[in-house]
Amino acid sequence: MKAEIVATGTELLLGETLNTSAHYLTGKLSALGIEVDYHTTVGDNLERLEQVLRQAIGRTDLLVTTGGLGPTVDDLTKELVAKVLDLNLELDLSSLEQIKQFYGRRKAPMPLSDEKQAYFPKGAKILPNPIGTAPGAIIEKNGKTVIILPGPPFEMRPMFNNYVWLELQRIIGPQAERMNERVLKVFGIGESVIEEALSELMSFPNLTMALLAKRAEMHIRLVARSSKTTSGEAVNSLDRAEEEIRRRLGDKVFGRDQETMIGIVGQTLKDKRLTIATAESCTGGLLGAAFTQEPGSSEFYLGGVVSYSNSVKQGLLGVSEENLKNFGAVSEEVAKQMAEGIRSKVGSDLALSTTGIAGPDGGSDQKPVGLVYIGIATSKVVYARKFQFYGERESVRQLTVQAALNEARQYMLDSERRL
Amino acid sequence: MKAEIVATGTELLLGETLNTSAHYLTGKLSALGIEVDYHTTVGDNLERLEQVLRQAIGRTDLLVTTGGLGPTVDDLTKELVAKVLDLNLELDLSSLEQIKQFYGRRKAPMPLSDEKQAYFPKGAKILPNPIGTAPGAIIEKNGKTVIILPGPPFEMRPMFNNYVWLELQRIIGPQAERMNERVLKVFGIGESVIEEALSELMSFPNLTMALLAKRAEMHIRLVARSSKTTSGEAVNSLDRAEEEIRRRLGDKVFGRDQETMIGIVGQTLKDKRLTIATAESCTGGLLGAAFTQEPGSSEFYLGGVVSYSNSVKQGLLGVSEENLKNFGAVSEEVAKQMAEGIRSKVGSDLALSTTGIAGPDGGSDQKPVGLVYIGIATSKVVYARKFQFYGERESVRQLTVQAALNEARQYMLDSERRL
Repeated sequence: MKAEIVATGTELLLGETLNTSAHYLTGKLSALGIEVDYHTTVGDNLERLEQVLRQAIGRTDLLVTTGGLGPTVDDLTKELVAKVLDLNLELDLSSLEQIKQFYGRRKAPMPLSDEKQAYFPKGAKILPNPIGTAPGAIIEKNGKTVIILPGPPFEMRPMFNNYVWLELQRIIGPQAERMNERVLKVFGIGESVIEEALSELMSFPNLTMALLAKRAEMHIRLVARSSKTTSGEAVNSLDRAEEEIRRRLGDKVFGRDQETMIGIVGQTLKDKRLTIATAESCTGGLLGAAFTQEPGSSEFYLGGVVSYSNSVKQGLLGVSEENLKNFGAVSEEVAKQMAEGIRSKVGSDLALSTTGIAGPDGGSDQKPVGLVYIGIATSKVVYARKFQFYGERESVRQLTVQAALNEARQYMLDSERRL
Repeated sequence: MKAEIVATGTELLLGETLNTSAHYLTGKLSALGIEVDYHTTVGDNLERLEQVLRQAIGRTDLLVTTGGLGPTVDDLTKELVAKVLDLNLELDLSSLEQIKQFYGRRKAPMPLSDEKQAYFPKGAKILPNPIGTAPGAIIEKNGKTVIILPGPPFEMRPMFNNYVWLELQRIIGPQAERMNERVLKVFGIGESVIEEALSELMSFPNLTMALLAKRAEMHIRLVARSSKTTSGEAVNSLDRAEEEIRRRLGDKVFGRDQETMIGIVGQTLKDKRLTIATAESCTGGLLGAAFTQEPGSSEFYLGGVVSYSNSVKQGLLGVSEENLKNFGAVSEEVAKQMAEGIRSKVGSDLALSTTGIAGPDGGSDQKPVGLVYIGIATSKVVYARKFQFYGERESVRQLTVQAALNEARQYMLDSERRL
């Protein structure tokens, strides 16, 4: 089954709004084994939009549109889809009722223009919009399917996941090929090392493997194609491949699919009933921000110090003037004292510290931009590890956060093994 | 002049890679007064790419392509553009030399396949690629212009800015209409209030004004159309409009064009030779991260405390147990003590504090999700202001950071006025 995604909206053609919907929908359709051949973006222009819709319906089995469902005169998608499919528009009373209720909840009368949003091509299956006023629709005619979705991503995405996903499974049928995907996430080794370690796995018969370099991690994307009825076997081969990859890369693999580094570290701290604190220099608060980005983080994250200046390193963390003088703020000794310092101040089980040269200035031959020390302190040990990162200031800072989280993860894994 | 942007790359049609280039180029072309009518994305497929290129050249004056310039057999853009324009490919020796030098710097021999990247349609003006191995090209034939750019944004963007921008100015000529843009950035008042305050300005004859709601600020986008020769008058009308808007909105306007809230606050601190520190609860380090995101921030940012737990609020900031018991951690009193506490600890001129309920849990009738207190302490004053934000956890955190920065900005402005 082949698909085309058409986005309409003049704001997309002024460089103001980035079209993320085509990207989002393409990922979803690919997961169903539907091949997306084209993305097309066109403004709210009668002639151009009609021409684009006509061409799309002519060359693909599935057309998904986003945008152009609003109440104004230049919202044209439903009208032109109806014209191209040679269908009349009909008023849907229940949609009209829901639009009225939408305004009722806001204690406002429905603008007359909004009635337009309750008209649909004859025979369309209507998709409710719980967030906005514009319902979507699915139209099937002559073996072609047209799915009409609203433009705003926060309306389009729930509509797709709540209604369209199941409809598409019905339409493509149980025998249709789909892609069973799994993503393994790796930190601390590079693309070439992974490729070498997994070389012959890259060419499994019933499995495709792709490496994707993300800013601070590597993703191994495994895809096993199957029909709905054979998806069990596909999942088995994904399991076997994951097992083999984990065997070869060990705990460099920190998570899979939706798991994140901070999610894994936070969950491990919760499971072990451990608390953690942070002492940050080059990351300036990003590490604390990472620990607190998910709700419930107060269970394990006590707090920290951003010791951007040496005076704060001394005053709030007890870093010694000697170490600052003899080794400099970016040094193993200071990283260790920072971690020790925050741990003793707040009484956490673990403590992490970061000190480095984020750049672009401040580097030297001995201490180049990207040099970072990450310290870790517990009741048992205090140590710091040296890293050399590359890239712009923000990349160095993000890599440092990820590396610090990974240090905590590794420490908890190792201490587990030691038990 | 009408344009179409065509992106090629199968990775764009798998949901892996988000196409940001069309968005970027559209903004640039709009600024030159070039109307972008279509974005089209197509895979590395011979038939489909040729059909898309043929259609684009047929219906627009300017075709800009991204991607498909690599050394592999499925990199087809130059070959198909040449075919559609009925031109031969010719080897460009200086490009070949530069590709060899690229590998020379990396102490590696040039793969034979890379020679492909040195072939261009006859008569093309070649655009060097200092970052990668694939040069770009500009081809003009029969009044049509085709600009061929590489796919990776970090190669495409410098190539566009270093070479294409000037070429386009030459091609459209001095009389061509261009858009003179100015963006005024506002914090602390909503869209409707701004619309009311500026209502009749919205319909200036030689000026268009648009309001764009960003996550934590409002942007007023002014555009004055002109030819190159009349751009002076356009700039004057932009100046007059900016003056009038600032007169009506006062210091709610915090910056323009490339200026950012943190940039303005940092610069003001530098200019006044003031230092600042932070005490963060709900923002968890984001405020410190904002202060340290630009190089040179150590001039004014000393550091701070992330007091996520009450024990840290007491231990490191000297917040009183009474206040925590009587008013709770999210209260004016605690916000004030946090700001005072960090200021006295690190001896900064200013101090900011944040405490609030970021959500999604932890809200109550008295203290709903989104309730935030921002404290500010100086040698002269200590006070806290109450905010009620809406949205998801991350939005509340970002809004809090922006509001805290704005408090510092307003304080420095007001203290100026008091002098």
